[in-house]
Amino acid sequence: MEVLVPFSTDRPKSRLSGVLDPDERAEFARTMLLDVLDAVAAAGGDPRVLATAPVDVDLACPVDVDERPLTPAVNAALDARLGDASGGTDPVAVVMADLALATPAALRELFAAGREADIALAPGRGGGTNAFVAGDPAFRVDYHGASYLDHRRIAAEEELSVAVVDSNRLATDVDEPADLAELLIHAEADDEGVGGEAARWLRDAGFALDASSGRVGVEREKSRDRDPF
Amino acid sequence: MEVLVPFSTDRPKSRLSGVLDPDERAEFARTMLLDVLDAVAAAGGDPRVLATAPVDVDLACPVDVDERPLTPAVNAALDARLGDASGGTDPVAVVMADLALATPAALRELFAAGREADIALAPGRGGGTNAFVAGDPAFRVDYHGASYLDHRRIAAEEELSVAVVDSNRLATDVDEPADLAELLIHAEADDEGVGGEAARWLRDAGFALDASSGRVGVEREKSRDRDPF
Repeated sequence: MEVLVPFSTDRPKSRLSGVLDPDERAEFARTMLLDVLDAVAAAGGDPRVLATAPVDVDLACPVDVDERPLTPAVNAALDARLGDASGGTDPVAVVMADLALATPAALRELFAAGREADIALAPGRGGGTNAFVAGDPAFRVDYHGASYLDHRRIAAEEELSVAVVDSNRLATDVDEPADLAELLIHAEADDEGVGGEAARWLRDAGFALDASSGRVGVEREKSRDRDPF
Repeated sequence: MEVLVPFSTDRPKSRLSGVLDPDERAEFARTMLLDVLDAVAAAGGDPRVLATAPVDVDLACPVDVDERPLTPAVNAALDARLGDASGGTDPVAVVMADLALATPAALRELFAAGREADIALAPGRGGGTNAFVAGDPAFRVDYHGASYLDHRRIAAEEELSVAVVDSNRLATDVDEPADLAELLIHAEADDEGVGGEAARWLRDAGFALDASSGRVGVEREKSRDRDPF
């Protein structure tokens, strides 16, 4: 299955600006992208990056550049693949580049769900759509607002069957400082031999778990600049 | 499978104090408990509430009162059931009372995992342990701090096999205002005919989704007191 991985090269991960400087955010975002591409390939998918500009890192998969915002870029990519509704086309997956906890097992479940239903959705925290598989050209995306609810509505309007994939790993997009804790918790605890580079990057950058109150968060013990070891 | 559902009657859901008053928090906590008990029963489990004091609501299942904190109360309950390691005992599940998004399907997956491995863990957001199944008396809980990592460490020390259940629904304990959005998003979107009372309670209390920035949150349009309809 072809798996598109949208990636924004323009000020990525701005909601992490309180804990990472711009260069760090760009490097961290690229590291998460590499983890996602590894997991997709290990799950049997054929990854292809859909970037807003050329990506400043060596990638083992094709890169398409489309400088438009996420919604029109993904819709154009879906159109190009599912196009004329003549049937017989393979479904296409779209997996966000910041799903650094995605495992091959979770992605295989997504791909399998997308072969059974017209649309398979993996909701993200806060109403987002972190990954989906579409097999019908009537489906289109709208990433503004609570996109998970919008995508269910769009599927219902088009009378498409929907499968929802219940995965914490796919629900965890890494956007905010609290999400960094998830990366440290689950990349430390599980070892499937795939990915884990983003968690390693964080630890190298001085991040550690902070269990001092309520839900576990992160604290940064050093910056890379001060202690580049 | 016997399924213990720990429930604190003492100032429940204090992290929601910014959006709910004490009576509302108690009522909301009881409503979530009822949803969890319904989901457990629909999944084929035999629920039993493990409460810190008698619960002020009619429950269709047994209630054990143990006024100790969560960790010693759950360990005592595990001891009483898995006890003397003579083998042949059924595994026991422990499912938190604030998993208002738990579906029968997600719980069945947990129970099945707990029949295969010595310990099945469903991690919660922020390093918690939202649900588990234990079949071996060597396992004990420690809910302080990043309990998910502690429970994995305890299992490893005792050479117990561990299965991790990757479920967003089981990972979503409802503790903080942002979690209320998850309840409104997913209880609205899915309908398995079980539960959903906690989401209905929230809507009746005036909560609605607020998609005005980043991840979708909640806003409260009215209080129950001002508009008790």
